[in-house]
Amino acid sequence: MFSIFLPKERNFFDLFEKQAACAVEASDCFKELVSKNRLDDASLKKMEDIEHKADNVAHDIFEQLNKTFITPFDREDIHSLTKELDDVVDMIYTILNRMRVYRIEHIDKNLVEFSAVIDESVHAVALAVKGLRNMKHTKSVFEACVEINRLENVGDEMRDRFLGQLFENVKDPIFVIKWKEIYQDAETILDICEDVAHVVQSILVKQA
Amino acid sequence: MFSIFLPKERNFFDLFEKQAACAVEASDCFKELVSKNRLDDASLKKMEDIEHKADNVAHDIFEQLNKTFITPFDREDIHSLTKELDDVVDMIYTILNRMRVYRIEHIDKNLVEFSAVIDESVHAVALAVKGLRNMKHTKSVFEACVEINRLENVGDEMRDRFLGQLFENVKDPIFVIKWKEIYQDAETILDICEDVAHVVQSILVKQA
Amino acid sequence: MFSIFLPKERNFFDLFEKQAACAVEASDCFKELVSKNRLDDASLKKMEDIEHKADNVAHDIFEQLNKTFITPFDREDIHSLTKELDDVVDMIYTILNRMRVYRIEHIDKNLVEFSAVIDESVHAVALAVKGLRNMKHTKSVFEACVEINRLENVGDEMRDRFLGQLFENVKDPIFVIKWKEIYQDAETILDICEDVAHVVQSILVKQA
Repeated sequence: MFSIFLPKERNFFDLFEKQAACAVEASDCFKELVSKNRLDDASLKKMEDIEHKADNVAHDIFEQLNKTFITPFDREDIHSLTKELDDVVDMIYTILNRMRVYRIEHIDKNLVEFSAVIDESVHAVALAVKGLRNMKHTKSVFEACVEINRLENVGDEMRDRFLGQLFENVKDPIFVIKWKEIYQDAETILDICEDVAHVVQSILVKQA
Repeated sequence: MFSIFLPKERNFFDLFEKQAACAVEASDCFKELVSKNRLDDASLKKMEDIEHKADNVAHDIFEQLNKTFITPFDREDIHSLTKELDDVVDMIYTILNRMRVYRIEHIDKNLVEFSAVIDESVHAVALAVKGLRNMKHTKSVFEACVEINRLENVGDEMRDRFLGQLFENVKDPIFVIKWKEIYQDAETILDICEDVAHVVQSILVKQA
Repeated sequence: MFSIFLPKERNFFDLFEKQAACAVEASDCFKELVSKNRLDDASLKKMEDIEHKADNVAHDIFEQLNKTFITPFDREDIHSLTKELDDVVDMIYTILNRMRVYRIEHIDKNLVEFSAVIDESVHAVALAVKGLRNMKHTKSVFEACVEINRLENVGDEMRDRFLGQLFENVKDPIFVIKWKEIYQDAETILDICEDVAHVVQSILVKQA
């Protein structure tokens, strides 16, 4: 009788890992783009494709959630996890798109520094999500969550430092408007990763 | 026995339709104001009245939700639907109020274009909400949701295009600050409409 | 039998009051700092300590929520209340930190006016939260909630007035960017206080 439900449960874990893989792909791509110091149309197209793929996975999870009676953990935790993982990809895409709209030609080294921290955090997110499948791995999941929290603090400090530099050194207000938004959005990605970590930890504690 | 609960259920649908009607009234009023190219005190007063009326309906729904044991669909979906419909009206009011505070004297044709798309989306939202009452109309509800999603993409493209023009052509940073916020808020209304569509679709799928 | 659960229930109320006390401490400290017209490192350190303390209380509540089977009121209301009270402290800290990053040297009298209204609202929030413990005090809780709603409207009017002055009188766009953000964040604190009041009222109505 129970075996009817179990395949679906496994399915949720597959879908979460697919979503986390999209986030990793987006963040790797972002890091690479930023380090190349220029945005070309091909790279933007690639990020758009990742964003569409991630949207589809999120849609599949919501659909399955609405149809499934027994879920591997609380419905609202599944909903939050899916939403937050989708937001990671959306926010990375948003930054790139904004750089295109604002015709940013020279990417500064601060954003390169930010993209490396974001990439570390998203990889830790993928590790934490993967660990949900097997409750024997809780120790490594908690370690990944601690790392995500640490990187969020690093991001806060970076945003403050970069904004401080921007307001200190730049005289062109239009330039300030553009980069203020980009730095704040970059830090928001680390906030969203921390939200994922909170959901993951809450799932683990309830199962304990 | 069951008839005790049924009138209350019907009542929820009446209240949702009242809320959607407020959103339509606000968006029609916004479209008309913007096309007239000037904000007078009478129009602002009218929008304020609509916003108060919408607040009262939302308040009634929350109150009834807290008192009702059996609800026509998930409590949290009722809560989200009410919250998002209220946010549509709030955001339209926010934009108008901001234009007053910023003493915007000339409304540009871009905002006229935006207000038309917003109005189309809000009308589709009202159609989707109306369709919840009768589960035989799911086809037209899904079509309205698809249309709302399409208009959200149109809004993204418009915001990007208008921001691009703003940063390309305008040299006055104060002007850029004001209109950047107005365009981004206008696009946010279409995001909120899309959130309504998501809640509506989730309600339909669960009932199927 | 029931006595096993009761101590835990009492515990939740203790923790909520601790959290509200942190919010009061933060808002008193903010009001005092702002009226002194200068940010020194010692004051910033003090606010950072309050913020850490508040984080720890929120963490304790979430942990206890995950482990407790019977809660004094709806789990999701406990979650929202904790989240919103934490956001009050975070937002006060955010404003101070931003003033440090932006090297604001002269604090204008508008922010002094704002900080007084924020402090009134946070004190009303603490009163409302305290009243949850004893359902005989609902009248004073509702009065506190009405006061919080009133102060949110006062805050809206203040933000609009101060932004109007800023755009009217200030010619330096960098100055406008900084203070626009500070005024809007100050108003956001009053919005969050109103969200606390909504959760508190919803808890009371369900218990009635």
